[in-house]
Parts: sequence; C-alpha cells; structure tokens
Amino acid sequence: MELYTLEYFMREALKEAHKAFEKDEVPVGAVVVCQNKIIARAHNQTEQLNDATAHAEMLAITSASNYLGSKYLSECVLYVTLEPCVMCAGALNWAQLQKLIYGAEDELRGYSLIKNPLLHPRTQVLKGISGQESKELLSQFFKKLRE
Amino acid sequence: MELYTLEYFMREALKEAHKAFEKDEVPVGAVVVCQNKIIARAHNQTEQLNDATAHAEMLAITSASNYLGSKYLSECVLYVTLEPCVMCAGALNWAQLQKLIYGAEDELRGYSLIKNPLLHPRTQVLKGISGQESKELLSQFFKKLRE
Repeated sequence: MELYTLEYFMREALKEAHKAFEKDEVPVGAVVVCQNKIIARAHNQTEQLNDATAHAEMLAITSASNYLGSKYLSECVLYVTLEPCVMCAGALNWAQLQKLIYGAEDELRGYSLIKNPLLHPRTQVLKGISGQESKELLSQFFKKLRE
Repeated sequence: MELYTLEYFMREALKEAHKAFEKDEVPVGAVVVCQNKIIARAHNQTEQLNDATAHAEMLAITSASNYLGSKYLSECVLYVTLEPCVMCAGALNWAQLQKLIYGAEDELRGYSLIKNPLLHPRTQVLKGISGQESKELLSQFFKKLRE
C-alpha cells in the first residue's frame, strides 16, 4: 500500500477549499483520513445551506462518522486548510479525534485564542502544512468580496 | 395573540428531552422561538445518528435556519434544557442568537466553564428555568445507564 504524505492529503483539503471559493463560500476545505484512506471530504457551505453550523469540519465529522458507523474518530486524522473555530474544536473534542492537521492560523476566530484547552486531551496537533497557500486563497476571497 | 411564558417554552423543550430519554439518548431537548412561535424542535440524537455533532442545539439551529432561510438567528430565542457545551456555544455565536434560556447547569461540559466569553456579545442569557426538572431527568438517565 502506497503511503501518502501529509502534503498530499492537505492538497486534497485545498481542492475542497477551492470548491467553496467557486461557490462564493469562505474557502475552507477538509478531509478525514483513516488508515491512509480518505473517508470524508467537505467544504464550507454556510451560505449555500443557510446554516451557520455548516463549516467544512462539521460536515466532514458527520460524513466520516456516517462512513464508520461510529461517533468517535479516535483513529482518524482531520486535515483542514484553516485553523478550526471554537464550535469545530468542540465538535472534534466530542469525536475524540486522533490527530488534527491544519494549514493557516485563524487570528480572529481560531480555537487556540481561547485560554482553556478545547480539543480532546488525546488529540495531537500539527499546523502550518500548506498554510501559505490556504492563506492566499482566503485573502483572494475576502479581496473579491470587498470589490 | 396569546403570549406564552418562558416556562411554557421550556416545557416544550423538556418534552423533546423526554423523547431523547425514550430513545436511550442523553436527555436534552431544545426549541427555537421567533416572534412568540416555535419554529424548530430538536433533541439529542448522537447515538441514533452516530454523530457527535448531533446535539439538540445544533439540530435546532440547523432546523430554525432552514425555516427562516437565514443563517442568523438574531431575532430568536433558544430554549434548551441543559447548559450548552463549547461546540454548541460556538455555533450559537456564529448564528448571533438573540437570547439563550437554559435549564440545568452542566458542571462538567458547560460553556461557562471556559474563561473567554464564547457566546456572541449581543446574546442575552437566562438560566435556571425548570432546571430542577431537567437535572432530575438527566440523573434518572445516568442511573439507568449504570444499572
């Protein structure tokens, strides 16, 4: 079995972010990986679904849980192009995610701005993978929005 | 138009909590009220849906947003039988909820355990409405679970 790299999976998450961009959604994308296989893909759909809870991570958690038939993602890695917000970090805590890998930091709404630890104590975190590319896509989106 | 009381709406949320109880779900229920009318009802379905994000509040937000065709609930009141967790508080922040009314405090997972304010600055909060009844239902559930 070929082992994919972190960058490969983050590129797949970035593809999802680009899908969001094309639909005039804040461009954030995510994939859930279990045993080196992508079991869920999602992008932000808050506008399309008129639903503030429809962040890429939330949709990816629901989709992965549905695939596994389990509400726990304790053997899964979530790749997301932007640092999760408080809501998504809270959801990842309930799901007992094994590992969170994110691209760009969210200096306004990122969960790490909160003093208390929000993720599950067992969740490992890695950040900065393709962070620059994610950040540029977001900048491009907000520039377009202001025009 | 008859004006209903807080207790009336919380009783409706408690009915939802009882539905959860009957399905062996942690008994938490919620209703969303807009202009004195219930526009969404939900109860915790994490077991039934195998989805850690399927808390009563999350399902109620999605349902209310769908009804209104808007991701903002800035003219809505959420009644929920138990204090929301971090995930749900984060979701209520994004939805810019007008008012949160909850029953029992959640001493283990309640959002108010977090030092930073998690709700939207404009969200008003009222707690303790039918709190004892909600607490007793939860105690009964966890007692049954341990048997």
